[in-house]
Amino acid sequence: MSLLERPTSVETAPVPVVDTARSPHARLRPVGLRQVRLTGGFWSPVVERNRDVTLDAQYRQLEASGTLDNFRGAAGRLDGDFQGMWFADSDAYKWVEAASWTLATGHSTQLERRVEETVGLIFAAQEPDGYLDTYFSGERAALRWTDLPTMHEMYTAGHLIQAAVAHQRVTGSGDLIEVAVRLAEHIERTFGPGRRLGADGHPGVEMALVELARLTGEGRWLELASWFVEQHGRTPPTISGRPYHQDHIRFTGQREPVGHAVRGLYLYCAAADLAAETGSEPYRDALDALWERLHSRRVYVTGGIGARWDHEAFGDDDELPNRRAHAETCAAIASVFWAWRMLQLSGDGRYRDALETALFNAVLVGVGACGDEFFYQNPLADRGTHRRSAWFPCACCPPNLARLLASLPSYLYSTSDDGLWLHLYAASEVVAELPGAVSVTVAQRTAYPWEGEVVIEVNPDRPAEFALYLPIPPWTSPRTRVRVNGRELADPARVRGYLELRRSWQAGDTVQVTVDLTPRLLAAHPRVEDDQGRVALVRGPIVYCLEQADNGDADVWDLRVPHDATWEGRFDPELVGGCVVLSAMGELVTTEPSGPPLYRELSSQEQRRRPQRLTAVPYFAWANREPGPMEIWIPMA
Amino acid sequence: MSLLERPTSVETAPVPVVDTARSPHARLRPVGLRQVRLTGGFWSPVVERNRDVTLDAQYRQLEASGTLDNFRGAAGRLDGDFQGMWFADSDAYKWVEAASWTLATGHSTQLERRVEETVGLIFAAQEPDGYLDTYFSGERAALRWTDLPTMHEMYTAGHLIQAAVAHQRVTGSGDLIEVAVRLAEHIERTFGPGRRLGADGHPGVEMALVELARLTGEGRWLELASWFVEQHGRTPPTISGRPYHQDHIRFTGQREPVGHAVRGLYLYCAAADLAAETGSEPYRDALDALWERLHSRRVYVTGGIGARWDHEAFGDDDELPNRRAHAETCAAIASVFWAWRMLQLSGDGRYRDALETALFNAVLVGVGACGDEFFYQNPLADRGTHRRSAWFPCACCPPNLARLLASLPSYLYSTSDDGLWLHLYAASEVVAELPGAVSVTVAQRTAYPWEGEVVIEVNPDRPAEFALYLPIPPWTSPRTRVRVNGRELADPARVRGYLELRRSWQAGDTVQVTVDLTPRLLAAHPRVEDDQGRVALVRGPIVYCLEQADNGDADVWDLRVPHDATWEGRFDPELVGGCVVLSAMGELVTTEPSGPPLYRELSSQEQRRRPQRLTAVPYFAWANREPGPMEIWIPMA
Repeated sequence: MSLLERPTSVETAPVPVVDTARSPHARLRPVGLRQVRLTGGFWSPVVERNRDVTLDAQYRQLEASGTLDNFRGAAGRLDGDFQGMWFADSDAYKWVEAASWTLATGHSTQLERRVEETVGLIFAAQEPDGYLDTYFSGERAALRWTDLPTMHEMYTAGHLIQAAVAHQRVTGSGDLIEVAVRLAEHIERTFGPGRRLGADGHPGVEMALVELARLTGEGRWLELASWFVEQHGRTPPTISGRPYHQDHIRFTGQREPVGHAVRGLYLYCAAADLAAETGSEPYRDALDALWERLHSRRVYVTGGIGARWDHEAFGDDDELPNRRAHAETCAAIASVFWAWRMLQLSGDGRYRDALETALFNAVLVGVGACGDEFFYQNPLADRGTHRRSAWFPCACCPPNLARLLASLPSYLYSTSDDGLWLHLYAASEVVAELPGAVSVTVAQRTAYPWEGEVVIEVNPDRPAEFALYLPIPPWTSPRTRVRVNGRELADPARVRGYLELRRSWQAGDTVQVTVDLTPRLLAAHPRVEDDQGRVALVRGPIVYCLEQADNGDADVWDLRVPHDATWEGRFDPELVGGCVVLSAMGELVTTEPSGPPLYRELSSQEQRRRPQRLTAVPYFAWANREPGPMEIWIPMA
Repeated sequence: MSLLERPTSVETAPVPVVDTARSPHARLRPVGLRQVRLTGGFWSPVVERNRDVTLDAQYRQLEASGTLDNFRGAAGRLDGDFQGMWFADSDAYKWVEAASWTLATGHSTQLERRVEETVGLIFAAQEPDGYLDTYFSGERAALRWTDLPTMHEMYTAGHLIQAAVAHQRVTGSGDLIEVAVRLAEHIERTFGPGRRLGADGHPGVEMALVELARLTGEGRWLELASWFVEQHGRTPPTISGRPYHQDHIRFTGQREPVGHAVRGLYLYCAAADLAAETGSEPYRDALDALWERLHSRRVYVTGGIGARWDHEAFGDDDELPNRRAHAETCAAIASVFWAWRMLQLSGDGRYRDALETALFNAVLVGVGACGDEFFYQNPLADRGTHRRSAWFPCACCPPNLARLLASLPSYLYSTSDDGLWLHLYAASEVVAELPGAVSVTVAQRTAYPWEGEVVIEVNPDRPAEFALYLPIPPWTSPRTRVRVNGRELADPARVRGYLELRRSWQAGDTVQVTVDLTPRLLAAHPRVEDDQGRVALVRGPIVYCLEQADNGDADVWDLRVPHDATWEGRFDPELVGGCVVLSAMGELVTTEPSGPPLYRELSSQEQRRRPQRLTAVPYFAWANREPGPMEIWIPMA
């Protein structure tokens, strides 16, 4: 039984998630959660699992971990020490945000009650002066704002503001947004020009303040966000002066993504938000350079970001270890956030491509098939010991996943001055308002990414000329077939990764796109020593891996793939809600002798090769069956 | 001009470094620093550089970093805050130890004055109750012994004790050993049965206490050392309960090297020291298992230990990243200490083999050709950015190197009940006392490791039967030729990695050993994914690398080595004091296109191959010329 029932009528408020509707320098406008409906396909079960399982499990973790008790303690309703990490409040806020987005398109008495109870606790925990961070209750009150680099008070405030924005947009209630505004005002009274120097040691508050400005229409929050971004790289430092905090140089001078990956990506998100509002060219220049460097030298094939466990850092160019990839789930989520903002700014498909890759691989692997277990780190190779957990001492990732998946329908479409943008092929319906007071309903029917056929029905409420933008991922480009009302387009216009179908649309028009999903073998740049002599198998946006569960007794690390292997796909309805599984003939290479010593003369070794069928599954689906070795980058035969 | 002059007569006291002379359960007995003289060859310049350059440079770093001022401050002679890491005292102690060992075989007015001044500062900084750690002076005095897992007070005490033992053995002075004993007594009054629970959060004090017991003959220090080792893994924990501190289970139950590598290795050293004194079988069992696991799954081909930057940890089985190897210089040194102790316990050549590998590669790479720059981490591949530094904020490694190199002659020989053990082929002379009041002088003439010929003159003071043990590294075993007085031995006895030449020796007897130094290509176990498809070039004990400086414009990461390459050696007198350089024909593989994207369809790439000469230099010699890429593990053609 589903926890929620689908509402019988769509509410009036569209519920944008990142609201660029009035951002002067954003090319694209949001399509809100209440304008999109998932209709089966790949994403419906994922979002439903998030709604039906994840939110419930995480709420119980918030209770079990003491996170909600921390609010009760700060409110004077409970005795006892603060429990968990000093920024644990943010986990509760992320959950409220996730639950709010979920309630945009359905109601659930239990979920609504939990949200309102949590909002009540948050309200009760706030200090009279607006300060709110339950770690700094009681004796620790004297330490407020004394350790900005480490103590995450602004990061936590940012998550409160994001939750409040979501709660207000969905419920219309002022309860939580009032708490958030009081905290923002407290911060504004404390920091800023002529007041205290200081900035967010873990960015988060900046993009939240931009969203608060968008919600309230108050420019002061933009100014505060901008002031915080501008504090980076000051002399003397207001944070730490260290690359770890992206505080080594001014943001506008930054060209290389360095330091803590999530901190960096959230900072870039904020700069993109501000660029959408201000049109700052120096911000755009920095963002373009940071994007280019990150995506040409420091990103995993999965879209994962953050090579290093130490300092959870981006790592150097081409430093992309597989087994010890950090690739934090939060970094993948942050990467989606950043890619989305860059896409809204520009309408450039390369941001869409990165978003889709991260979403299907680096993000989705973070949650298990069950919906209540999560990865923090996401290695690309493993011996079978890395498994998901129900929660973490540092529990940032699980509720971050929940809020992204709860808001997922908002990432499917945008509008612009000249038409409707379809970003992700996904079974869905959208009702969008286009310029000229044209309302258009678009329905996608597709089993993408498992099948390449996408049928798109376009139903404007009256005949109207506008462009329909459809994504053409770089890997499919030369092979993509597009038909409008059954007739193949010989040479449709292609603009920066999108097909631009500009015509006079009438009710009942149908577009058919056939995306080529032939499995492909990717090689990494030769400087990536970890991937040398290896290939990654991908099909459409899905990165595959060899997992032991599918490959019998032969250790998957001993399998080899020929460069010209013929891969066959079959849909396995049992695997994580149904996935296409790929198989091909390859080789099993065993080395004799196989025991110690660790290093042996090459001439004393013998390698035995025999044909062996390889079976590959989507990377996001791994670690849902019996534990065993896994690898994405397969050595070539 | 040399800083020191060689003494004209050998002093009476032999100056053992690890004194197993009276250890009931050690098979081997030490040969002290005053019993050995280096006579050119490989090691003389290394030890002389340590004496003439390193000790001077490090003393000036101790001044510049405020480390000596910390003692002045604690002694009330100087105002100002403590400077540097909280365990910086240990750097001064290691330097005193290194200087003391150096003074065993030569005098230097300047060095002696610096030692005595430093000893005077240490004396003056000690509290009346015996406590000594200058970080915990002034206001921080209240925090003494309150954070054992982190604050390194016992580790620092251990280094004081080691320095004091060295100082006493070399100078005969009681000045520093009295300070050390007062501190040890303070610790003994504070911790132990019926007193406070607690143990060393960073092992170090335990092996120092064993050495103090050996020096003083007082069993109480053995008991205290043993008590500390026994505190590991208690319930409730006395340290942290975490694998990081090897505190997750009792030492005797430990079978897997986990946690912080240097902490672990120092703990294992202490357990080996205790086993030499007590004969504990459970200790031996744990040590054997830890050794086996470490050396069959978790050691670099260089002998480096510690795969991970995060928590400076051992890492999992077969987790041996090259570019991001941590391989701390201190861990390599600790590995030598542990191997030496296991060798003294057992006379088993596998410990000698590991010691030699670590010494020539993982240890020696830690110091630059100049003698005053050092590595902390030691990657096995690099893009040319990793360079040595004169000092570090955490400066544990440089003076640790200094003390090991200052005591190096003590690692060349041992004695046992039945003879003399030669552990390292090295140009040197030893005067050893054997059972039966036989005094034997042995002289080695050799250019090992550059040449394989070793001529050993054996001169007992009277004809006597004893065994001369000569190392037969596993890689040379079938090819080693041994001649005694010109006559080749057909089938000399081989016992656990040593040739056992047992005969009646007479003055003038000569042994010639020819060690095969044919370059070899090593392959790693197939589970080491980082080395898959790659080989390491070694010659004798020396691990080679490709460094950009020798290989023209072709990026060394693009070079490939054929499995049957013919390697030619030539001696380059200019390279780091003279090294054999190896070269062979290989291939240069360039990939087109070479720019972004990071991931590309395999079929869209083209690899171009052309013959290219490869030039390889000893790994320890790298990063002494212009910066550039380097790698040990070369992809196979």
